[in-house]
Amino acid sequence: MNAILSGMRVVEAAAFVAAPLGGMTLAQMGADVIRIDPLGGGLDHKRWPVTHDDVSLFWCGLNKSKRSVALDLGKPEAREIAMDLITAPGEDAGILLTNFPPRGWLDHDKLRERRQDLIQLTVQGDRHGGSAVDYTINSRVGIPYITGDEGGAATQEAVNHVLPAWDLVTGQMAAVGLLAAERHRLKTGQGQHVKLPLEDVALAAVSHLGLIAEAQLGHQRERHGNELFGAFGRDFKTADGERLIVVGLTLKQWQAICEAMGLHEAVKALGERLGLNLDLEGHRFQARKELAALVDAWMSRHSFAQASEALTKQGACWGKYQTLTQLVTQDEACSTANPMFRMINQPGVGPHLAAGLPLNFSGMDRLPAGIAPALGQHTGEVLSELLGITQAQYGGLRARGIV
Amino acid sequence: MNAILSGMRVVEAAAFVAAPLGGMTLAQMGADVIRIDPLGGGLDHKRWPVTHDDVSLFWCGLNKSKRSVALDLGKPEAREIAMDLITAPGEDAGILLTNFPPRGWLDHDKLRERRQDLIQLTVQGDRHGGSAVDYTINSRVGIPYITGDEGGAATQEAVNHVLPAWDLVTGQMAAVGLLAAERHRLKTGQGQHVKLPLEDVALAAVSHLGLIAEAQLGHQRERHGNELFGAFGRDFKTADGERLIVVGLTLKQWQAICEAMGLHEAVKALGERLGLNLDLEGHRFQARKELAALVDAWMSRHSFAQASEALTKQGACWGKYQTLTQLVTQDEACSTANPMFRMINQPGVGPHLAAGLPLNFSGMDRLPAGIAPALGQHTGEVLSELLGITQAQYGGLRARGIV
Repeated sequence: MNAILSGMRVVEAAAFVAAPLGGMTLAQMGADVIRIDPLGGGLDHKRWPVTHDDVSLFWCGLNKSKRSVALDLGKPEAREIAMDLITAPGEDAGILLTNFPPRGWLDHDKLRERRQDLIQLTVQGDRHGGSAVDYTINSRVGIPYITGDEGGAATQEAVNHVLPAWDLVTGQMAAVGLLAAERHRLKTGQGQHVKLPLEDVALAAVSHLGLIAEAQLGHQRERHGNELFGAFGRDFKTADGERLIVVGLTLKQWQAICEAMGLHEAVKALGERLGLNLDLEGHRFQARKELAALVDAWMSRHSFAQASEALTKQGACWGKYQTLTQLVTQDEACSTANPMFRMINQPGVGPHLAAGLPLNFSGMDRLPAGIAPALGQHTGEVLSELLGITQAQYGGLRARGIV
Repeated sequence: MNAILSGMRVVEAAAFVAAPLGGMTLAQMGADVIRIDPLGGGLDHKRWPVTHDDVSLFWCGLNKSKRSVALDLGKPEAREIAMDLITAPGEDAGILLTNFPPRGWLDHDKLRERRQDLIQLTVQGDRHGGSAVDYTINSRVGIPYITGDEGGAATQEAVNHVLPAWDLVTGQMAAVGLLAAERHRLKTGQGQHVKLPLEDVALAAVSHLGLIAEAQLGHQRERHGNELFGAFGRDFKTADGERLIVVGLTLKQWQAICEAMGLHEAVKALGERLGLNLDLEGHRFQARKELAALVDAWMSRHSFAQASEALTKQGACWGKYQTLTQLVTQDEACSTANPMFRMINQPGVGPHLAAGLPLNFSGMDRLPAGIAPALGQHTGEVLSELLGITQAQYGGLRARGIV
């Protein structure tokens, strides 16, 4: 099939979210991504959530559409093979993605001796290579102290995020880094070692969002519960107990809410009383409690069906709060009606929805979501294709416990 | 300066986080990113946080290192100029990044009439082009219902995230999409229209992390407060009242915690009592309350200085909880000691730390973080460079209120 990255080959030596997600992003664009694991599986092979039979839904989810090579990496001969795979010839090959320390068989200088134009991207914890994961970074950059109930500020509570947001961002940045480096190699022939610390990804994001500047200017960001900072947005409950969020970030979004709920006059009167211009997002934030009371009163008189109809009719920006179970059973966007999704039958798991790539390229067919490989499923095939290892030689490797 | 994307030119017509962040990521790799705004600024020009003088730290943070062109886009002549800029000649140009509906001057087919190999990437709300922002997507994909206190599950509370995680991921995916499409164009000459719905980014991520499969298999993910799902990790308070997180996701990380705190025997006894093998991450999650009690008892007897020394000595995975103020005043990683950061003097804001790119390419110098442009600062220069508009012609545009 004609895919945007057809012909590119990437070797991945990684675990958990960020680097495997970066690799899978490339695989879902058609690159041949070969993940190398130790026999028996890497550090993430049993990561929860798991099935009753201990098959990792996490691992399957993050390694779709890759090929799997399993080697006894404790043995020098296996490490030689791994290095040969990483540096095997191919115009669009010689690309390594890892989140392991660049030592031993992942030593960039040693690998470059075998392939001068190697591109290696190493995801690190901190920039010195120290240990860090999403959750330890998140606590450092201040997010848990500004999440959750307003009351929490007084009690100094911290609310960890559940979504590994930094891992997700880092995974995409890993793909960015590899594509940029490969573009540069196409133009100049030059390879390189790209480093991407998870810590720096988070620090850069809080800088870009203005949070570092704000703190340096002496403003301590408060906790604002479920309220969207700097504009109007919050969760509300309808008369029949459903929860939804309405957002009035832009003036148009705000006017749609007012129109849907018939609030124009009440809002105008409120603005006059408070001396605020509620057409301005910042003033809406200052009047958020009073505005929320108006919206809340309307919501408490309307069912979810009525509210969603009125909001949708005005093109308002809103969303329903759903549990994951509601998402998978009731939301059309999370079904095969959405062409990003496909039902796959993952061995050991059974049929379930799996997502392909959110990017939709008009110039080519969309690759359907693939299944994850079984551990080592492609070892023989890859060693034959890339290294020309014969069946007899493979038998020998097997006998020596290398594969 | 030699940068990884030197020579690439991107026109950005966008607002808020995702698309501007995608553009800035390319700019921080050396691409010439030209942001087009209406006179007076776009929808995000005053987005909070702001200074006392209403200068948006958010806007400045997300538009660093770009050039700014301001046009009266309500006028047909201005829209013609914008279309000319988007489709201006240049081998590595003809790239448009937007999160506005692809209509009018952003209509892909009309733009392609001017430049056949145009690459356009449109960030959408949902896949039908409907209105959605980070927070309305987050509520739909189920994250607020699994965030926060365990007690919250009973009361059906929802905890919104403060970090616009989906926007951050989408911004990087926009850069991925443009780089992949440009690579394809380098090889084939073919341009295309790439679509990237924010909703699909979030749905794909919850699929990849195993959350959709888990729900389809009939498991309703519970709220687990600050506990890391499926392994051991939580916040603890030291004897002197500091908060830190320790994570024992891998066996090595877990053993480092036990070693630092002298817990090996107590953990062994606990495992025997509970009939669990606490070397397994899933069993550690099952015994998380009992394990946390052991760690908590140790923490309550040690100061932060003692705890951090003991954990660091063992190479444990841990992090301090910091407020944003603590981050900017006390953390060496958030200072110019980290080469990603630079003090910039942003007009209207004053000196503050700003982050460059987290990706560090060994093959080239690291671009220092730049400042954001003033609105329209580069209009004359860009119109002259790209369209050959003379000073006299520019005077005419000015007189007619176009620029």
